[in-house]
Amino acid sequence: MGQQTKYLLDESDLPTHWYNIVADLPEPPPPVLHPGTHEPVGPEDLAPLFPGGLIAQEVATERDIEIPEPVREVYRLWRPSPLYRAHRLEKALGTPAHIYYKYEGVSPAGSHKPNTSVPQAYYNAIEGVRRLTTETGAGQWGSALAFACSLFELSCEVWQVRASYEQKPYRRSMIETFGATVHPSPSPLTKAGRAILEADPDSPGSLGIAISEAVEIAAADPETRYALGSVLNHVLLHQTVIGLEARKQMELAGESPDLIVGCTGGGSNFAGLAFPFLGDKLAGRGAPEIRAVEPSSCPSLTRGTYAYDYGDTAGMTPLMKMHPLGHDFVPDPIHAGGLRYHAMSPLLSHIYDLGLIEARAREQRDCFAAGVQFARNEGIVPAPEPTHALAECVDEARRCAETGEEKVILTALCGHGHFDMAAYDRYLSEDLIDRPYPQERIDAALERLPKVDV
Amino acid sequence: MGQQTKYLLDESDLPTHWYNIVADLPEPPPPVLHPGTHEPVGPEDLAPLFPGGLIAQEVATERDIEIPEPVREVYRLWRPSPLYRAHRLEKALGTPAHIYYKYEGVSPAGSHKPNTSVPQAYYNAIEGVRRLTTETGAGQWGSALAFACSLFELSCEVWQVRASYEQKPYRRSMIETFGATVHPSPSPLTKAGRAILEADPDSPGSLGIAISEAVEIAAADPETRYALGSVLNHVLLHQTVIGLEARKQMELAGESPDLIVGCTGGGSNFAGLAFPFLGDKLAGRGAPEIRAVEPSSCPSLTRGTYAYDYGDTAGMTPLMKMHPLGHDFVPDPIHAGGLRYHAMSPLLSHIYDLGLIEARAREQRDCFAAGVQFARNEGIVPAPEPTHALAECVDEARRCAETGEEKVILTALCGHGHFDMAAYDRYLSEDLIDRPYPQERIDAALERLPKVDV
Repeated sequence: MGQQTKYLLDESDLPTHWYNIVADLPEPPPPVLHPGTHEPVGPEDLAPLFPGGLIAQEVATERDIEIPEPVREVYRLWRPSPLYRAHRLEKALGTPAHIYYKYEGVSPAGSHKPNTSVPQAYYNAIEGVRRLTTETGAGQWGSALAFACSLFELSCEVWQVRASYEQKPYRRSMIETFGATVHPSPSPLTKAGRAILEADPDSPGSLGIAISEAVEIAAADPETRYALGSVLNHVLLHQTVIGLEARKQMELAGESPDLIVGCTGGGSNFAGLAFPFLGDKLAGRGAPEIRAVEPSSCPSLTRGTYAYDYGDTAGMTPLMKMHPLGHDFVPDPIHAGGLRYHAMSPLLSHIYDLGLIEARAREQRDCFAAGVQFARNEGIVPAPEPTHALAECVDEARRCAETGEEKVILTALCGHGHFDMAAYDRYLSEDLIDRPYPQERIDAALERLPKVDV
Repeated sequence: MGQQTKYLLDESDLPTHWYNIVADLPEPPPPVLHPGTHEPVGPEDLAPLFPGGLIAQEVATERDIEIPEPVREVYRLWRPSPLYRAHRLEKALGTPAHIYYKYEGVSPAGSHKPNTSVPQAYYNAIEGVRRLTTETGAGQWGSALAFACSLFELSCEVWQVRASYEQKPYRRSMIETFGATVHPSPSPLTKAGRAILEADPDSPGSLGIAISEAVEIAAADPETRYALGSVLNHVLLHQTVIGLEARKQMELAGESPDLIVGCTGGGSNFAGLAFPFLGDKLAGRGAPEIRAVEPSSCPSLTRGTYAYDYGDTAGMTPLMKMHPLGHDFVPDPIHAGGLRYHAMSPLLSHIYDLGLIEARAREQRDCFAAGVQFARNEGIVPAPEPTHALAECVDEARRCAETGEEKVILTALCGHGHFDMAAYDRYLSEDLIDRPYPQERIDAALERLPKVDV
């Protein structure tokens, strides 16, 4: 019998509680502000958009928050997810490093997103909500929410960034297969969409615009609420099942990570893996380096600033202290659609500002090279987003090959690339370009940040 | 804690041997004949196409055949695969039946195909072969072989049916991501391809034509061999890991199947699940019904005849006694590309002829309806092929809802539908048609079967 490849947990090892890192931080995160008054928002301000159960989690300060049994029952369709040791990749790299990856591509939507879409649909359903609206880029989040809504008998409308709606029709088909309706964004269905279309009838859309549309529709109908796939505290909270399981699985493997690496767009996948380990570190148990990797074309942590900004383009959401590039920042059309958000989760930005994690930015060609090497050795074609983390792992493992260090690296493989093969096609035909991202565009977008005195 | 959803096995439960049902059959299968002389072929006749290790398995009569450790090491990337109890689907159907599905979509190529591509690449590699050729339709088999070749450092050339090459480019991108080369078939690279193109420059191709091309190239080069993704005994043998694992998992669930259902194209997925249970049945352990489901547009078991035919269109392969529709039969372009082969595995045809299994044919719209219902309840979007088996399960479960029978149904969910979303699109937009398959086309193709006196 050879070396063990997978570390599986039994369904009885499924976490019973999510982990709320807020309870363990040396300082609480700054308040969320009303977009009009710039005063801290209360739960009542959020009520038109979110159900009470999720608002309570958004502001919760207790450490462990129980996962309702109906949510756990759905989680069991794919959770606990496997943790793999990448023996073949290690061998190909000739490295003494140990590379582990926690694989979330086994979920219904093929990514980590259902970890939060399921509880979001659940809390809405038990409070009598009938319909959810949301935005989606490439479609990972839209398909995850559509799936969750089908289970809890909610109707679901998805505003998909028009560029993706037209270029990546298969995620849209998946959303429709799960029973939801998809609108290309900007759409003529909303004030926000009409305003954009008036200025530019050919607008390719952006996540910020699609959020404005979905929020507008939800706010106008008392039976409709809005769902967000990343950024917010309750979303990051739900994703901690990843790290909680991974911690048990690393114990099964008899190792503890020296380095934890994840890709960051809105921050939920990274936080989901890292927070339980960071909580341990804050409590003096272990001292792993924890590193976020973002695309160099959307470098919110590495080149953004820590400041208040809107979550959407139209300025309809509350103001959050984040690491934004400016709410009207439009990144280059790289293939990692899930990493193109103009800001970073406020909670993760706060943790970064406290110096508890580090961040790097990477060009996409390097990332695809790592993705192809990973696929040829491990068999899984990764989504473009986690190739950012894989590229970092590969470099780190190569450094270990030089130094001889047996570093234990843990990364989040947050999804498969089955709907991203056109991007691999372009990489393999050498049709992808990287370019240094112009500082003046970032500076200009940051100039337009809302002025907030706190 | 709710009901258990998944039955997982540890890596130490990975089968150590494949199961060869030939050892347990009441009669041996009929001989394979040389296409020129019509005399039984010997191992030496197969040597230009296959390595010795696989030829030995093709004619093996012992019951248990050891799985080499390097193959098991690769299997561990995704095996043992999970067995699920479809609680949510059962509830949606209001049935007392218990529905279990063995899910092979967790493999690198997203189907059961790597179960055989990996040992095929392995046996070729250890005998010094440098290159493998093969055919593929929608691309499931091509991507599985490309993956296996990347692991054992073989080069790989895939002739892909032109209609799929043009309409389903993403499987082709996956094959290329794994490092193989893809040619649209018919191609000008072979005599067989050129002959077809001369008669019809716009030929959309067929599996039979692509096989002729891949075989021609392999036969002409001593360092090249050919690999087939279904039909042959050694392929069915490799797939028995599915049923061997499922048998252990049904034990974990504390049940034994009353009905086993699988879809059949060439027959390997169905055989892989069914043979270990059929072996038990032949030995007097359990008495499940075992049912193959094929598309009504390619009804080789239900409307073909038991007779000798070629495996390819050009008549280059040995003659095998199968359930063919005729080697030049071209089925309607249904979306279950993997079920469009003009014949049925000789071993499975023999078993069907002995009356040990039953068969049904189904229209594709019913199948997609079952696929959508399955996706909305279980979260997995199935490939079009296994929706044939799912439609049968759904009907059977509905019958049980009427009779109250707690029938235990086990089916093979042989792959996901991530590369088949265009087919779901067409189904959801009511753009799919079913039509009774014209008997005269089948009769005409059967008229052209080779005349063999045995």
